[in-house]
Amino acid sequence: MAGRPWELAVALERGSGTPVFLQIAGSLADDIRRGRLRPGAVLPGTRRLAATLGVNRNTVVAAYEELQAEGWIETDAARASRVSSALPDPRPQRFGGEVGRRAAVPARTGYDLPPLPDLHNDGVRPDAELVFGSGVPDLRLVPVAALARAYRRALRQRGRTLLDYAAPEGLPRLRSALAAMLAATRGLAAGPGDLVVTRGSQMALALVARALVTPGDLVAVEEVGYVPARAAFALAGARLAPLPVDAQGLDVEALDALARRTPVRAVYLTPHHHYPTTVTLSPGRRLRLLEVARARRIAVIEDDYDHEFHYDGHPVLPLASVDRAGVVVYVGTLSKILAPGLRVGYVVAPAPLLARLAQLRSTIDTQGDPAIEDAVAELLEDGEVQRHVRRVRRIYRDRRDALADALRRDLPGQLSFDVPAGGVAFWARSLSSPDVIGWARRALAAGVFFSPGGWFAFDGRPLPYLRLGFACLTEREIAEAVRRLARTRPPVGRSAAASVIS
Amino acid sequence: MAGRPWELAVALERGSGTPVFLQIAGSLADDIRRGRLRPGAVLPGTRRLAATLGVNRNTVVAAYEELQAEGWIETDAARASRVSSALPDPRPQRFGGEVGRRAAVPARTGYDLPPLPDLHNDGVRPDAELVFGSGVPDLRLVPVAALARAYRRALRQRGRTLLDYAAPEGLPRLRSALAAMLAATRGLAAGPGDLVVTRGSQMALALVARALVTPGDLVAVEEVGYVPARAAFALAGARLAPLPVDAQGLDVEALDALARRTPVRAVYLTPHHHYPTTVTLSPGRRLRLLEVARARRIAVIEDDYDHEFHYDGHPVLPLASVDRAGVVVYVGTLSKILAPGLRVGYVVAPAPLLARLAQLRSTIDTQGDPAIEDAVAELLEDGEVQRHVRRVRRIYRDRRDALADALRRDLPGQLSFDVPAGGVAFWARSLSSPDVIGWARRALAAGVFFSPGGWFAFDGRPLPYLRLGFACLTEREIAEAVRRLARTRPPVGRSAAASVIS
Repeated sequence: MAGRPWELAVALERGSGTPVFLQIAGSLADDIRRGRLRPGAVLPGTRRLAATLGVNRNTVVAAYEELQAEGWIETDAARASRVSSALPDPRPQRFGGEVGRRAAVPARTGYDLPPLPDLHNDGVRPDAELVFGSGVPDLRLVPVAALARAYRRALRQRGRTLLDYAAPEGLPRLRSALAAMLAATRGLAAGPGDLVVTRGSQMALALVARALVTPGDLVAVEEVGYVPARAAFALAGARLAPLPVDAQGLDVEALDALARRTPVRAVYLTPHHHYPTTVTLSPGRRLRLLEVARARRIAVIEDDYDHEFHYDGHPVLPLASVDRAGVVVYVGTLSKILAPGLRVGYVVAPAPLLARLAQLRSTIDTQGDPAIEDAVAELLEDGEVQRHVRRVRRIYRDRRDALADALRRDLPGQLSFDVPAGGVAFWARSLSSPDVIGWARRALAAGVFFSPGGWFAFDGRPLPYLRLGFACLTEREIAEAVRRLARTRPPVGRSAAASVIS
Repeated sequence: MAGRPWELAVALERGSGTPVFLQIAGSLADDIRRGRLRPGAVLPGTRRLAATLGVNRNTVVAAYEELQAEGWIETDAARASRVSSALPDPRPQRFGGEVGRRAAVPARTGYDLPPLPDLHNDGVRPDAELVFGSGVPDLRLVPVAALARAYRRALRQRGRTLLDYAAPEGLPRLRSALAAMLAATRGLAAGPGDLVVTRGSQMALALVARALVTPGDLVAVEEVGYVPARAAFALAGARLAPLPVDAQGLDVEALDALARRTPVRAVYLTPHHHYPTTVTLSPGRRLRLLEVARARRIAVIEDDYDHEFHYDGHPVLPLASVDRAGVVVYVGTLSKILAPGLRVGYVVAPAPLLARLAQLRSTIDTQGDPAIEDAVAELLEDGEVQRHVRRVRRIYRDRRDALADALRRDLPGQLSFDVPAGGVAFWARSLSSPDVIGWARRALAAGVFFSPGGWFAFDGRPLPYLRLGFACLTEREIAEAVRRLARTRPPVGRSAAASVIS
């Protein structure tokens, strides 16, 4: 052996999750890196090292093979393993006269940053013990094991293809599975070529906005509505025009009146369970909306984000299912059905728009994650997603009823609400006091989060409403959360009652 | 039993991958859906059905529990299972007078589509037997099993958190792991707060472009360079100014001259192994570039897409490692180290830019996929990524040498090239004929893909160069591909030789 005798210091941890051969290789590589083993030094034979460490000889052979593959050691003519003369991980080269310490990242930019449009999209991620989540499913119910299995199977069977560059429209297998689901449940005779896969509905909206809007174009949105959608349109340079929403949904006549005065590029709405009020756009207004859009060439961006969660009576088919004029851009997502973290959404629209969406997707994101797309396609094909939907729909229905009971029991006369036929939340009016923001603050201090209605207002003014999401709390949690709401409710007083905004 | 006797038609397929209890439940659900089993009908007892099917009784119990959870059956007071009166999957409701067939998606839009900027980003995805991939790693070498294991572990241990909404900056665990890697290998003393995770370098570039560029701003790019980066700047509304590249890399004096004439918002470059020519920006030019940028407040967007793949001598530290003025925006990716399909990239920059990137990310994409981010963080933490890099670096180096040998052997006098010290491709000049596009076409017909040099030219003019990526072909495949290149090479003739572009 070259140089002075070398003391082995391989501390093996069995059951650590790291295979033993990698532990041996890592330990030897460390010794080489630190100079305890120098270039040219001969390593002990595999048989001897195996005996010393009390492991199978094959384990040491595997360790040496790994070290050789990584370039730490070489096998010489006499089949002895020696530390390589040129080590892997060559030290990078500085340039210029800079020496010494690594550079920290400067705190300020050396260039000017132009202002961004105000996106009002701060994405509050509530951290409380009990969260009346505004649109989040109960992730405790997600079929995690099935998902992990499907992902592993995808990688094992088609790993090489699924880790590669891919088409920006999404994996054909997933497009087919989504098209089949839409045909079966939403009255849309869509084929795989009629949709593109996106990363959740947010990327769908951002791409659609960028494809439709020329800066300065007018886009109509719901006066009380979904803030991140507004951010997507604002980012594309749109001017936004708020339209009223009432018990029948979006005020379509207001859209028509607006479009008579000035060109409207697009209207964005959530017609099935309006976000955040949960009202359904009435049949009369649906037909009228399509008529106005056709006459004025307005794109109707239909965000059907939680179609499946309908409990009483029948869900209403989307606007897209009766659109003969090609005015509807249909946006859907699996974020509510499965999980937001998976980021699988889609857009159904005429081919010329889809082609632009694909080109834009390619430019901002290249493509999706084909392995995840393949795994989700498998879960759709084998019915796992549909079974999951049936199971959670029943659970959410019971939670909805539990929330209605609890609110009536613990906050009598304090809130006015309709029990929603669908969706995942109540839109409840505070009767005794308009100070819902104060209530939200006190509730948060008591470990309960809910969204005050004003968060959804176009002009940001306070609204005397609470949005109470019930999907992600169990019935027991709902009862506890409502008790805490009751404890923290605004005092009922003359002055408060008099100042209610109507 | 209510109604006429019901014939069981459960065809069990063992080893089909679908658990037997789900097969039984699915079969009964089908019978209910088709009306063979009507509302109120009593199902056989679990013991009897188990005997009929020859399965364990617990399997039938599990099947009935699934049917109950999905809402197909109910258990009555006498503990008999009956088909539910209200079935799951309520039929959706049409609105208006529409009846009959599902609507097909119209072929045309009923609204006007504004023109998109010309992105020149068609993303050719070569489909050939032997692909000299321009920047793709060999996906046959990816540690697929380790990745699948890490993903499953992430979901199992932290599934609920990792499937939820998350911060747009990326998972803290991954940001820490990336920062540690950058500190260890690239002379960047970055902490987790100094970077944001993106979906590959493409989203990084799109976000940076959107954050820096006001429409009409001038952005300088390499005259021969990376097309998708140009697309990202064009999409943000930038005017692009091409700068020459020579054997020392980007012509920094040309940038200075341009910036003296007119404000330049940013310069985009690939200084380590220039894409596509593989030249390294010289130390003198590096220092001069930082000086020019600091003096003129130009953002330097450093795309270090394949830092690890350096074979001879020492890799050069990034510009970011000596940037005291906060002018460098450092963009990196794991697409080349691991796999493009994972879409993990990052940006290191001063905090004010990072804050804007996070807000933009939130608006176009909400967030990343936390489970994938967690799995990749684990692979970084336990050294799997670093081991993989060492292994493939040696393999790629041998492939590089094999390609040099094959080109000298089979195409003597036909090509002029330097063997690149790093990167994953050769930039070879065709000596006998400038018609590289014709050569590419003939090669493709013979099953070999390579990128003609003109594809990377700012003005799209043909260039007498071939980019020959060697990373994703084995040595044997390289030999075969070069033989086919030789068979399809341009004829050597006087007229051809005379028309060489210099």
